[in-house]
Amino acid sequence: MSRQYRVAIVGATGAVGIEMLHVMERRKFPAASVKLLASARSAGKTHRFRGQEIAAQMLGINSFEDIDLAFFSAGAAISREFAPIAVQSGAVVIDNSSAFRMQENVPLVIPEINAGDVARHEGIIANPNCTTAITLMALYPLHRKFRVKRIFASSYQAVSGAGTQAIEELKQQAKAAVSGKHIEREVFPHQIAFNVIPQVDSFLDSGYTKEEMKMQNEGRRIMHLPSFKASVTCVRVPVFRAHSIAVSAEFQERVTIVEARDAIVSFRGIELRDDPTDNVYPMPLDYAEEDVCAVGRLRIDSALENGLAFWVCGDQLLKGAALNAVQIAELL
Amino acid sequence: MSRQYRVAIVGATGAVGIEMLHVMERRKFPAASVKLLASARSAGKTHRFRGQEIAAQMLGINSFEDIDLAFFSAGAAISREFAPIAVQSGAVVIDNSSAFRMQENVPLVIPEINAGDVARHEGIIANPNCTTAITLMALYPLHRKFRVKRIFASSYQAVSGAGTQAIEELKQQAKAAVSGKHIEREVFPHQIAFNVIPQVDSFLDSGYTKEEMKMQNEGRRIMHLPSFKASVTCVRVPVFRAHSIAVSAEFQERVTIVEARDAIVSFRGIELRDDPTDNVYPMPLDYAEEDVCAVGRLRIDSALENGLAFWVCGDQLLKGAALNAVQIAELL
Repeated sequence: MSRQYRVAIVGATGAVGIEMLHVMERRKFPAASVKLLASARSAGKTHRFRGQEIAAQMLGINSFEDIDLAFFSAGAAISREFAPIAVQSGAVVIDNSSAFRMQENVPLVIPEINAGDVARHEGIIANPNCTTAITLMALYPLHRKFRVKRIFASSYQAVSGAGTQAIEELKQQAKAAVSGKHIEREVFPHQIAFNVIPQVDSFLDSGYTKEEMKMQNEGRRIMHLPSFKASVTCVRVPVFRAHSIAVSAEFQERVTIVEARDAIVSFRGIELRDDPTDNVYPMPLDYAEEDVCAVGRLRIDSALENGLAFWVCGDQLLKGAALNAVQIAELL
Repeated sequence: MSRQYRVAIVGATGAVGIEMLHVMERRKFPAASVKLLASARSAGKTHRFRGQEIAAQMLGINSFEDIDLAFFSAGAAISREFAPIAVQSGAVVIDNSSAFRMQENVPLVIPEINAGDVARHEGIIANPNCTTAITLMALYPLHRKFRVKRIFASSYQAVSGAGTQAIEELKQQAKAAVSGKHIEREVFPHQIAFNVIPQVDSFLDSGYTKEEMKMQNEGRRIMHLPSFKASVTCVRVPVFRAHSIAVSAEFQERVTIVEARDAIVSFRGIELRDDPTDNVYPMPLDYAEEDVCAVGRLRIDSALENGLAFWVCGDQLLKGAALNAVQIAELL
């Protein structure tokens, strides 16, 4: 590959796709060209990149002929169909869907944690689930210090994780609700405005959702820790952007708050925001559109032997998706 | 005491106080008379009870002279000052504040769980914290079956727990946000519309909030289980009414889903709402203004030996406050 990449974005008109353009621009990603690829429905829509309007083209089997690097963010089905085609055309694929995350020959990477895994890619590199990525940004530095055994976590997930239509749905429902009008829904199975929905993604036979099991499954691969256990409840909340996760984590070694704070502070990509006496802790409103994740509410867990409870926030379109994908590309 | 009670409600113009009137009316509580007591600021406000408008009177040391039963719901400071006065005047006090909940000679009661404790009261009976009460409605029947050891829980608490002004604040902030206007705040330390705030009540030195520790402290008293441990994160969410709690519970005995469902179904005051394949689970929107609490998302916990994960919803103004208080009065 040359030092300037010919880039394609599949799913370019979606929430993550648009964010990808912003991130590449902001980080001065060495893109020789950018091709936007979308479904027939969205082809023709234009997006601005470095002062130029680029029109989305319809995704097809010949879309990747002149491409070095393809970001996929159009769902698992599209990735399964077109990522192998892109690889055959000579592109490296960075896939934001769940399609290849558990595949042995596909590295699953958070650059701050397991950048080294990128080297063994065979054409596809997977970007982790958003809630998992944000949680691990706080958990991994703690794990390095204290050796994590298991976590209990509950998420407070913003609607933007479900795409641009979901953002609009929350806005319209909130407007209707405060003016006493009829509430319509399309994206979510239930009203999301002034409600919370304890379901993200579909259910497995175990009673957990797919989203909930990603924490354990993807966490094991990213941290290289096959014994890691995670019991998670994923909940959609009426927040536009940025996810939050409440975590109780059990470690092998004795935890102290001083060492835990040190571990966070000395890790890239996450900041400590933890001053309860002044009501300071991370909130989704403060971390929307921020590259950095934040952790607060650090406390020795009252129900675990070597445990720490904490609260982490991060923008799931950025660290949970577009930013992490571009960071992976920068490793190449 | 006669079979008809002369009732006083302290904090009668607050969110819980108003609900108390509705609950007494609905349950045909044998009230000979109802006196509404409030601060100087709210005295004079009228509320309807059994077709009559009753004006709130200013709370004073002589307010309880002709009262058999006094409900307190005006904060711990008012309870500490006036509950002993009410008792001296011959009234039984049912206190919704945290003032006496941990006091040895004050029973802390959820009627479905420990009705028998009421008998040993010395004038004051305490009503538990709302999040604790709703969680225990699901946990206790499971405990009876499997013997609970500890829980990890995260709450999704509605604004109504912070009073009528808080409800108005969420409404105004949501209105302002969707029309791009300036957002004002007064009740909550941060914007609550389209945000979540990982703080309810004030912080202890341990890093937990008072609210978070109530689960363990009150849970031990209500379940008569001094070894019970709970690690909780309490979070305010932009929901008007009804709290939700995600729980991972560890038990002494082996848990099966069939037995867990049976335990819930055969317990009064809670219903099972658990059909993931049809996207059926409790949500705060469905349990606002409902007496009954509901549990769903029952699943064998993936990170505990004998563990069960579940999700419980309940109206914190009802089971979490007014309903439970009136139920206690009915036991007398």
